[in-house]
Amino acid sequence: MKNPPSLDQLISALKVLPGVGPKSAQRMAFHLLQRDKAGAEKLARALDRALSNLMHCQRCNTFSETPLCNLCADTERRQDQLCVVEMPADLLVLEQAQCFEGLYFVLMGRISPMDGIGPHDVNLDKLMDRVLDGVVQEVVIATNFTAEGEVTAHMIAELFKDRGIKVTRIARGMPVGGELEYVDLGTLAQAVYERRGLNK
Amino acid sequence: MKNPPSLDQLISALKVLPGVGPKSAQRMAFHLLQRDKAGAEKLARALDRALSNLMHCQRCNTFSETPLCNLCADTERRQDQLCVVEMPADLLVLEQAQCFEGLYFVLMGRISPMDGIGPHDVNLDKLMDRVLDGVVQEVVIATNFTAEGEVTAHMIAELFKDRGIKVTRIARGMPVGGELEYVDLGTLAQAVYERRGLNK
Ligand SMILES: [Zn+2]
Ligand SMILES: [Zn+2]
Repeated sequence: MKNPPSLDQLISALKVLPGVGPKSAQRMAFHLLQRDKAGAEKLARALDRALSNLMHCQRCNTFSETPLCNLCADTERRQDQLCVVEMPADLLVLEQAQCFEGLYFVLMGRISPMDGIGPHDVNLDKLMDRVLDGVVQEVVIATNFTAEGEVTAHMIAELFKDRGIKVTRIARGMPVGGELEYVDLGTLAQAVYERRGLNK
Repeated sequence: MKNPPSLDQLISALKVLPGVGPKSAQRMAFHLLQRDKAGAEKLARALDRALSNLMHCQRCNTFSETPLCNLCADTERRQDQLCVVEMPADLLVLEQAQCFEGLYFVLMGRISPMDGIGPHDVNLDKLMDRVLDGVVQEVVIATNFTAEGEVTAHMIAELFKDRGIKVTRIARGMPVGGELEYVDLGTLAQAVYERRGLNK
């Protein structure tokens, strides 16, 4: 006695999703077939559409439906500053914060030797070409402050050493409105180490 | 600045999966588009195939690609015993245990008033028709020993009261090879309450 083939194939296909093992793939398949066929249909169509419509922006590497994304096509942005982020979501957050007027480069990942993700997997060669276009003056590294993000930041900084490009890293420190008592100790320590002079 | 529409649509479509919120839908979308386009394609096709091929077996209600599933079509099985389970996975486990020679009925769920799942949602009307076919003599209830499974078992037992159908429940007790010291206390208590006489 076995499941019908098309059920087993669906369960197995759902396991391509990160974090989905055999048990939750089975639960997902039953849920879709039993309670949300419209959702299953919607998912199949969205996958097809995304696969056929999405490419990587030629300049910034983010997902785009056009060869050049809207942001890279915007001539109002500062062309001499390039902010490097790990993922498209990071770019969106920075844009929401309205704190940066330049352009971006999206690595689409972070270097993580443990997971077998090396410099080539995060498009450092593409970043190199982008930065050395003769227009970019400063690379602002805004990868996460995780172990992987820090390694990635370090690799990028190395990449542009002695190339006449200013490389900066966004600051660590206390969150705005943060109280010393409630912030985590690592953040507090960094805030002390990276203290800024208020008088000359 | 927003994501391209086909990316947002994919992220939103992935949220139809149970247990998948906005953050993990985004992570899944990036993973598929970035690292596993073949997997995304496979998933889209498996969804289409499952949606068009799978139906519920007319007799036992499990997923099947034919109006009558293989098991229900098997005339070698005992026709007078019907085991009621929550999900197709439960049926498969019982078959693996090779402990039951009769036929099955798959509820496709469990009664859970908290989640708005009532008797109709677990096909009790279909079960009623199936049991009262004049051939079934015993209904073996094998729903889970969870709160919802127990409520469901109770409702099914009520359904066939005074109908000349024997209704049984699979036993609770110590697992085979189980040591008292390591079994959970609820199970241990049930094993004592449901103790069987060894002499006459
Ligand atoms: Zn771009
Ligand atoms: Zn059947």
